[in-house]
Amino acid sequence: MEIATHIEQMARAARAASPLVANAPVDQRNAALLAIREAIAEDREAILSANEKDLEQGRIKGLDEALIDRLALNPARLDAVEEGLAQVAALADPIGAVSGLKTMPSGIKVGTMRVPLGVIGIIYESRPNVTIEAAALCMKAGNAVILRGGSEAIHSNMQLGASLASGLLASGLPEAVAQVVPVADRAAVGALLGLSQYLDLIVPRGGKGLIERVAAESRIPVLKHLDGICHVYIDVDADADKAHQIAINAKTQRYGTCNTMETLLVARERTELLPKLVAALQAKGVEVRGCARSRSAAPAITLDAVEADWGTEYLAPILAIRVVDHVQAAMEHIAAFGSDHTESIVTENEATATRFLREVDSSSVMHNASTRFADGFEYGLGAEIGISTDKLHARGPVGLEGLTSQKYIVKGDGHIRQ
Amino acid sequence: MEIATHIEQMARAARAASPLVANAPVDQRNAALLAIREAIAEDREAILSANEKDLEQGRIKGLDEALIDRLALNPARLDAVEEGLAQVAALADPIGAVSGLKTMPSGIKVGTMRVPLGVIGIIYESRPNVTIEAAALCMKAGNAVILRGGSEAIHSNMQLGASLASGLLASGLPEAVAQVVPVADRAAVGALLGLSQYLDLIVPRGGKGLIERVAAESRIPVLKHLDGICHVYIDVDADADKAHQIAINAKTQRYGTCNTMETLLVARERTELLPKLVAALQAKGVEVRGCARSRSAAPAITLDAVEADWGTEYLAPILAIRVVDHVQAAMEHIAAFGSDHTESIVTENEATATRFLREVDSSSVMHNASTRFADGFEYGLGAEIGISTDKLHARGPVGLEGLTSQKYIVKGDGHIRQ
Repeated sequence: MEIATHIEQMARAARAASPLVANAPVDQRNAALLAIREAIAEDREAILSANEKDLEQGRIKGLDEALIDRLALNPARLDAVEEGLAQVAALADPIGAVSGLKTMPSGIKVGTMRVPLGVIGIIYESRPNVTIEAAALCMKAGNAVILRGGSEAIHSNMQLGASLASGLLASGLPEAVAQVVPVADRAAVGALLGLSQYLDLIVPRGGKGLIERVAAESRIPVLKHLDGICHVYIDVDADADKAHQIAINAKTQRYGTCNTMETLLVARERTELLPKLVAALQAKGVEVRGCARSRSAAPAITLDAVEADWGTEYLAPILAIRVVDHVQAAMEHIAAFGSDHTESIVTENEATATRFLREVDSSSVMHNASTRFADGFEYGLGAEIGISTDKLHARGPVGLEGLTSQKYIVKGDGHIRQ
Repeated sequence: MEIATHIEQMARAARAASPLVANAPVDQRNAALLAIREAIAEDREAILSANEKDLEQGRIKGLDEALIDRLALNPARLDAVEEGLAQVAALADPIGAVSGLKTMPSGIKVGTMRVPLGVIGIIYESRPNVTIEAAALCMKAGNAVILRGGSEAIHSNMQLGASLASGLLASGLPEAVAQVVPVADRAAVGALLGLSQYLDLIVPRGGKGLIERVAAESRIPVLKHLDGICHVYIDVDADADKAHQIAINAKTQRYGTCNTMETLLVARERTELLPKLVAALQAKGVEVRGCARSRSAAPAITLDAVEADWGTEYLAPILAIRVVDHVQAAMEHIAAFGSDHTESIVTENEATATRFLREVDSSSVMHNASTRFADGFEYGLGAEIGISTDKLHARGPVGLEGLTSQKYIVKGDGHIRQ
């Protein structure tokens, strides 16, 4: 069968299954999650041997060690997948609650009810764990889901897809609620992205190349962020110790995450903080690049930061530092070079903090806190399907609610419009 | 200058102006709305004579009477435009409020702040009033706006654009906060719809042809509905009088609106209601088309409803009636033929009502109320920029809040992630 035809059949099946999962009571959705957990426990051997096949082919293809590591499943990782299913099952049901019911002058009562989105497509790279984690969140929110992992993980993903199917069947839901695309060919992605009549949302997870391609090709709305060029601004009124701790944490707590600081902005009156901070960063192995003013304040900075540095997400132990004249200049730098992800101000001045929180146009804006907190778990969402830097629908870390919509509910007693 | 270059300059100017209106205090945004109101009052003669030019050209082009009427401005309509500006100025400020601030286990406080979307494009047809009404809502929500009306209203719209500009300047905001595209050429629309780097949202207002074209061409998210094929379902447990009143009101209160009922579904046990209902509808001049079962229950129905009727938005005094076996069949009919706009069930059975409210996947779902209530004013939104039948971002009648986004706000006191 042609790939496009096959993908369309899957999408049509997902659309047909979506009212069944949407209207399933939360107990049934949770039972499905727990049945999938059991299926994975029972299928462990098959999953690990399918994964071994992927790893073998990956080594033959010469995938680098980092990729091989992300591709690998092992008992500990499967434990985490199973634990994740139990956690999602334990989350509060986001569906069906009516909120804001108010009586209008006409006498009708108007409120909104939270409902599933419908059908969600997840397009992701090497980590096969995502197959189950993403499916669980989509299903908990009452959606059908189509999962399209990387070709390098095809055997693992198809085996995990079999566990999804058996868990769904055990709980009385159709298999089409969560389907793994069984085709390694890249044409499958293009076919999926055109099916706006069947899918409501696409969530790409992976590197920037994947996300750019998905965003450019998709006829379906995409929930995404491209870059995480996050800033910390040390204000003239910053507490020295908080500034030091937050800058170190935002840069070094993890290097490869999208909420890691990539550029540090420092008010020109506070360059006295730089020597100690730069020494601490360098002691942790961070390569520091500075503008002329920061280099003259901290001669230990031996590398120039050039224009290109301001727009780079290093995802590595590298930091660019720029001295700015005031909070306004810091906000202008962020507007010019940032990626609308996460920015933080360190200051004891409430008025300056309020201005920064209000005027910086990023998905997360912080005061006296490390950018590393920009995360669904840290925000109390219970889980995270991804982070959005777009402004429509969901912005910032996206949990279950971002996988839902709402509709208006009107209650009358024979009311007619005059 | 090339049209595309000109449109891009306008869009870039709007993007540059958007932080200025986003960060303007609400008093300044309201002052701008009232200054525009004053400018329109002062410019009345110029506006009416520009409109006279459009009307003259419209008559020469042979526009039909309905179009000429929608194109026409007169003192009463300008009164309404001025009153509308005052009403929008009086609405609560949707911007800047922080909600849901909660302390997390880490000690940080996390909440969300409502913020403007940025730059909004409005693409509309003949009614020049929309120029001011849409601009007012966008600006109140802190957005810059680009207005592209129909070529037949170009003189009226440009003159109204001059009033917008002078009101903005009087209140200290840049003219680029609200710009009217001064080009009648249709290429201007195509150029605008490609500028996703400058615009955040497109709102098309007009006929289905316009909206389909905008949705197909746009690289920018579009807030829209295509059809309003709205249903009333008279359930087996319906109160006879409520069913009669609601059906009459939903069909006949106005014929040309998107929330008017187009198909009536009746439970097979309640066909005894049809003769009186059909007589009342026919007395009001409604052409009734029925399925075989409804025709046999009400022989006054002389026309067959065929498959094509179920999927037609008449926008006219025509109604299709279908007898169905039960609520499940009614919901299946709605899922197959509806347009996800507004559906209402008439029943005294709370369990059936709850099921209908929960399972019908439309932007408004009603119980014992006329579909004609699906409206921003009736829902207490204060005003309406349009109705969305899509599921992302905003759904149903869209007021000021749909023209905003939110961002996460994090407050710490030197908090770092462990």
